[in-house]
Amino acid sequence: MTSNKAWTLAVRPSGPVTEDNFKLVESEAPRPQDGEVLVRNRWLSLDPYMRFRMDDVKSYAPSVQIGEVMVGQTAGEVIESKHPGFKAGDKVLAAGWQLFSCMKGADLAKVPASSAPLSYFLGVLGMPGLTAYFGLKEIGTPKPGETVVVSAASGAVGSVVGQLAKIAGCRAVGVAGGRQKCDYVVKELGFDACVDYRAGNLYRDLKEACPKGADVYFDNVAGEVLETMLKLMNLRSRIVVCGRISERDEPYCHKNLGVLIGNRIKMQGMIIFDWKDRYLEGINELAGHLAQGKLKYRESVAQGIENAPKAFISMLKGGNFGKQLVKLA
Amino acid sequence: MTSNKAWTLAVRPSGPVTEDNFKLVESEAPRPQDGEVLVRNRWLSLDPYMRFRMDDVKSYAPSVQIGEVMVGQTAGEVIESKHPGFKAGDKVLAAGWQLFSCMKGADLAKVPASSAPLSYFLGVLGMPGLTAYFGLKEIGTPKPGETVVVSAASGAVGSVVGQLAKIAGCRAVGVAGGRQKCDYVVKELGFDACVDYRAGNLYRDLKEACPKGADVYFDNVAGEVLETMLKLMNLRSRIVVCGRISERDEPYCHKNLGVLIGNRIKMQGMIIFDWKDRYLEGINELAGHLAQGKLKYRESVAQGIENAPKAFISMLKGGNFGKQLVKLA
Repeated sequence: MTSNKAWTLAVRPSGPVTEDNFKLVESEAPRPQDGEVLVRNRWLSLDPYMRFRMDDVKSYAPSVQIGEVMVGQTAGEVIESKHPGFKAGDKVLAAGWQLFSCMKGADLAKVPASSAPLSYFLGVLGMPGLTAYFGLKEIGTPKPGETVVVSAASGAVGSVVGQLAKIAGCRAVGVAGGRQKCDYVVKELGFDACVDYRAGNLYRDLKEACPKGADVYFDNVAGEVLETMLKLMNLRSRIVVCGRISERDEPYCHKNLGVLIGNRIKMQGMIIFDWKDRYLEGINELAGHLAQGKLKYRESVAQGIENAPKAFISMLKGGNFGKQLVKLA
Repeated sequence: MTSNKAWTLAVRPSGPVTEDNFKLVESEAPRPQDGEVLVRNRWLSLDPYMRFRMDDVKSYAPSVQIGEVMVGQTAGEVIESKHPGFKAGDKVLAAGWQLFSCMKGADLAKVPASSAPLSYFLGVLGMPGLTAYFGLKEIGTPKPGETVVVSAASGAVGSVVGQLAKIAGCRAVGVAGGRQKCDYVVKELGFDACVDYRAGNLYRDLKEACPKGADVYFDNVAGEVLETMLKLMNLRSRIVVCGRISERDEPYCHKNLGVLIGNRIKMQGMIIFDWKDRYLEGINELAGHLAQGKLKYRESVAQGIENAPKAFISMLKGGNFGKQLVKLA
């Protein structure tokens, strides 16, 4: 029998996450029972939301409990199936920071892996890409000529938001950490401008990048970038509240909410699950843009399950460059 | 000729407003020029938004400049008209903390004063009532069985919001300052519950008043009440961002915005001007409820223009009980 390796939550973080928060557990890979499917995971997706699931607070999804396998989406292939909907060799999305997942068939999703590399279904054609697509389209509602700003602009969600904004005929402005990411966002992804939030002139630089103010702000980070963007939002503008990774260790003190009234700004929280019934629409749309070369996509790959915590901690600090993945096998 | 008295802005407030911020100026009432109308004001409306217009900050409406007459809506009657749309005796809405207003006809609004007391067109049938009507209906979108919370619940806007929520089949919960106002809100206005924010147990009391959480929060005050309500908002709930009087002297530090994501909460700012084309719909609806006894309304009246600043300062601290007016003549 094959041996499984899985990262579990050892200790909840108090302050920044460290490698001590995780524990690698080895065990025999389980055999599937009736209705279950055994998956060999090839790719693990690392995403900011996982940080919040490590805390013991009520949220839209349950916290990871101490000793449980860390939450996360994987892409892999079926090894053994006791569910009529799956057979060995099927490419699927499964779950957990682990080499093998034994799950109920109902909790698995098959992917049309012939149409794109398997890892894409964890990124541009997966939750991050769909988050960008539905959040921008349904909450941001950009109109041609408007200015769309997105934070974490070189990341898995932000890079798609900005490119979709360009496709929609908008001015796309990114916010990213460091010159290298900003250059990529403008030169490779085709954004009109990108502000380096580490450069120390956030308000001035954003104002310069948005000469007509901002009509949509797609917020992946909250904190100081959100606070600053509030001052630049136009009449009847929309803020897509998607992520808050800059507040991972402590909440920011927001004092600019007063502008919501005068400018009739809408701020709306989102989670991609709400569009579950329309994923196929999103995937088809994004795959179409990829095929036409209108949508560029970059991955940041860590090698081997042993490196998952390190890669995760680095990503939380902005150390990744593009969609963060761990190659498991 | 008649003598006018007008309160002007003498000094911008730094911290709480004092009477020294205003100056009473006497002069001859002007004679209307072509296209203008002279109005004798009977009632002056005092509203929280005026506090923010005393500051020198960019907003949806220009600040009052030093030496200018304080901004505010009045109800009165036409004395002399050089505009074809108005004649002596017409009841109109005019502007300024003053006994006489000489204004362009285009800036006046005639009111059907036979259908209700003139002062009502500054309150339940005026901007506050319409703010409640359109804000609740168009942004709050309450459904039968839902819980609607409103702050400043005994005030001109809040009292209407809660009663409209009851009419819509919702549980109505008010927040007000002091036992007396809370008793009024529940016993006279028919809210299901009212929380006294001065009692010192805001979270506990709100939680108890909202056993199924809150689906709509109509926010007239921002600050600590908003911060606390964020913790009680349900999945896909709506926050109507209407006023922020508790932050009149300094902005509050909001740290609970993270809940917007998990609960997909919508926060949206509003100003009543946006429904200008539909005022008549709102007035008819509200007048209908008044006529049927389903909508109760209370005024807090200060006597004489000399007392306007005192009444305004008291209102900012919650000293009014119902819609604050000044009887001018």
